[in-house]
Amino acid sequence: MKINFPLLETAIEIERPTIFVVEDTKVFSNLIKDFYQYGETSNQLKIFEKTQRSLLVSELMVITDILSFDMNSSSILKLIYQELAEHLNDDPEKKSNIEYYLNHIHDCLINDSIEYDLDLIMEEPEIQDVYKFFKLKVNSMQSSIFETTLEIIDLYKKLKKKKLLVLINSCSYYSQEELQELISYISLQNSPVLMIEPRRIEGVEQIVLDNDFYLTN
Amino acid sequence: MKINFPLLETAIEIERPTIFVVEDTKVFSNLIKDFYQYGETSNQLKIFEKTQRSLLVSELMVITDILSFDMNSSSILKLIYQELAEHLNDDPEKKSNIEYYLNHIHDCLINDSIEYDLDLIMEEPEIQDVYKFFKLKVNSMQSSIFETTLEIIDLYKKLKKKKLLVLINSCSYYSQEELQELISYISLQNSPVLMIEPRRIEGVEQIVLDNDFYLTN
Amino acid sequence: MKINFPLLETAIEIERPTIFVVEDTKVFSNLIKDFYQYGETSNQLKIFEKTQRSLLVSELMVITDILSFDMNSSSILKLIYQELAEHLNDDPEKKSNIEYYLNHIHDCLINDSIEYDLDLIMEEPEIQDVYKFFKLKVNSMQSSIFETTLEIIDLYKKLKKKKLLVLINSCSYYSQEELQELISYISLQNSPVLMIEPRRIEGVEQIVLDNDFYLTN
Amino acid sequence: MKINFPLLETAIEIERPTIFVVEDTKVFSNLIKDFYQYGETSNQLKIFEKTQRSLLVSELMVITDILSFDMNSSSILKLIYQELAEHLNDDPEKKSNIEYYLNHIHDCLINDSIEYDLDLIMEEPEIQDVYKFFKLKVNSMQSSIFETTLEIIDLYKKLKKKKLLVLINSCSYYSQEELQELISYISLQNSPVLMIEPRRIEGVEQIVLDNDFYLTN
Repeated sequence: MKINFPLLETAIEIERPTIFVVEDTKVFSNLIKDFYQYGETSNQLKIFEKTQRSLLVSELMVITDILSFDMNSSSILKLIYQELAEHLNDDPEKKSNIEYYLNHIHDCLINDSIEYDLDLIMEEPEIQDVYKFFKLKVNSMQSSIFETTLEIIDLYKKLKKKKLLVLINSCSYYSQEELQELISYISLQNSPVLMIEPRRIEGVEQIVLDNDFYLTN
Repeated sequence: MKINFPLLETAIEIERPTIFVVEDTKVFSNLIKDFYQYGETSNQLKIFEKTQRSLLVSELMVITDILSFDMNSSSILKLIYQELAEHLNDDPEKKSNIEYYLNHIHDCLINDSIEYDLDLIMEEPEIQDVYKFFKLKVNSMQSSIFETTLEIIDLYKKLKKKKLLVLINSCSYYSQEELQELISYISLQNSPVLMIEPRRIEGVEQIVLDNDFYLTN
Repeated sequence: MKINFPLLETAIEIERPTIFVVEDTKVFSNLIKDFYQYGETSNQLKIFEKTQRSLLVSELMVITDILSFDMNSSSILKLIYQELAEHLNDDPEKKSNIEYYLNHIHDCLINDSIEYDLDLIMEEPEIQDVYKFFKLKVNSMQSSIFETTLEIIDLYKKLKKKKLLVLINSCSYYSQEELQELISYISLQNSPVLMIEPRRIEGVEQIVLDNDFYLTN
Repeated sequence: MKINFPLLETAIEIERPTIFVVEDTKVFSNLIKDFYQYGETSNQLKIFEKTQRSLLVSELMVITDILSFDMNSSSILKLIYQELAEHLNDDPEKKSNIEYYLNHIHDCLINDSIEYDLDLIMEEPEIQDVYKFFKLKVNSMQSSIFETTLEIIDLYKKLKKKKLLVLINSCSYYSQEELQELISYISLQNSPVLMIEPRRIEGVEQIVLDNDFYLTN
């Protein structure tokens, strides 16, 4: 994944956890705005894959306000149910197991409704509806901002439709040990995570666009 | 079940399919209105059980417009699901069977979500929700007004919460054979059905309140 | 307005209040069903204007259950607001009067919000929204079924989009004097009203399709 | 307005624009969480007025994510409409002016509906509904994060129900000139604004809780 915008000479590559420090507040502030409004026509921010394919708006996950991020919003749950249904498709034995039990319940209900003596009909349920039926959701503890960030990382890496996670101005909430742990945690997986920060962070690798618009790794 | 209103000297008993003819249009029209507004304070219609207990509004099922009656309205389906859940409670073996299969599906999903590696939680579903999950509904053919009436009778006799079905001005829609069949059909069960008509019906037993307010059986 | 269906040799014209008696219960019952399902492909009932133009489903107003007819349902109110807005369009002076007052209120609010010192914007309201704002609705007394029928006639004649009102099996609710009054009332206006009845009505003009499918005026 | 929490020896007073720097990330992060969850029982953060009265949850306005703050959310608009209605109450002449025009429109509509010849009724509208009718809303330009912050300040100072605005980690988005301007802008009004920051800000007055939990002004 790469990002680019007019002030950069070449695109920045985001393959690993990438901390990108933008020292100039104007540039920082505008860049954040561009991430928020990614996909609008006037937007000068480019995000694209190695194949030059532009990232879709739906593939971008931008988070400023970690504490108010709802892991169990209906849009997130819908993505999770889709993922789980696909995951189940890859395991035909387990899927047919569930279908076997569903059919048994179906038969029980049919028999029972015949006894009940009212002409009733039922639909075959979709596997995807099973998750909703069991009210499956993310077990978010949200104990601290750091813990919540780890949960967001976990969620993001499971949502195949999301290709880039951008955390904005979040490093102030982590101690140095927590930040190290977060970076290691992100490194263990393959999904790119971009952390955009307004100030240099001590002791971690970072790309800096300084006040003179000079880029250093 | 009995009904009474000021013009009657004694209450009318409705134990079997009861056809009640009210010849005076004013009285007929007002009686229909009172059935519609049963439960309102100014209402002069009394409906009560042998124990003198007044019928609750929720126990009365009044139908004028057979064709637009929706067997699968959410309020009717809710009653049916309750009935079915109670019916299942009376058959512990079948109920535990369904619960057994539900638990298996629950376990499959749990295992699958562990493999999927996201911390997910699920709720134990209520048996009553199973009906909604399978989108169980009444298989209404609604082929003719007569057939639809039979379906309404079937539905009514299964809804234990409904204690009296009142069909208003419906005999015009049935041939004499159909009416005979309808009466026999209702007689086979124990739930009282009152048919209120504006004119004498040939060839069937009926209670008549004539134009002189004289009551004959 | 004319109606036709296979059993008729020629179409029946409905120019004035037309009482159409169908003695055979099967034919009566099926005809009612066809009025309910007018517009569906299998339907054998034809309703058309003198120009042979078929009546649209939205132009037909079929009422079986007078007591539960809601004059102030959102769909009826929407039609009334449209009619009133058109009526106002025909009276430019009155319309510009209302707009004049609306503009004054608009200016007052603008001035007030400037004083209030927050940068606020407002939209020009549509005349049609004024009715909703004043919660305009039909003053239905619904004192008796007869009175309610008169109110329905009043409403129907004002709804230009409705081209045919069909009252089904309603004569049982009116005394002979009321029916006479109803017929006179309908005659005073130009909108066709069809009353379909299962039995001959004493003392009024009517078209009868008898048990031998023979049509008499 | 004052805030207090276990690590502080005495409460911090927030009378003017107050920048509060919390250097320890753990303390910073927990404090932010406490502002988010203000009002929950386990919360150790105290916010209170000079009279010792605790701030109500509804009186607190906490903003982390300036860009996604919606000035025209229904909850904010409801507050604005209330404020405007109260503002109008203080100016009886202007209020009676608006009522005068409303009555004129009411009369026009009544006259028109009499001509239209359908028995219609209307309700007297509430002054508060006038704002909704004219779809009054905040004219938010949201041109930059800084401009949006000024708009939030403007909004906040007009919402009498809000007693404390807390901006979290927002200084990274402003240039030094913008921050100076923001502070001057806030100083011109009487409503307390607390800005909580994770790092010392150059060139502005601030209260600092340093890494040794030592408080300096």
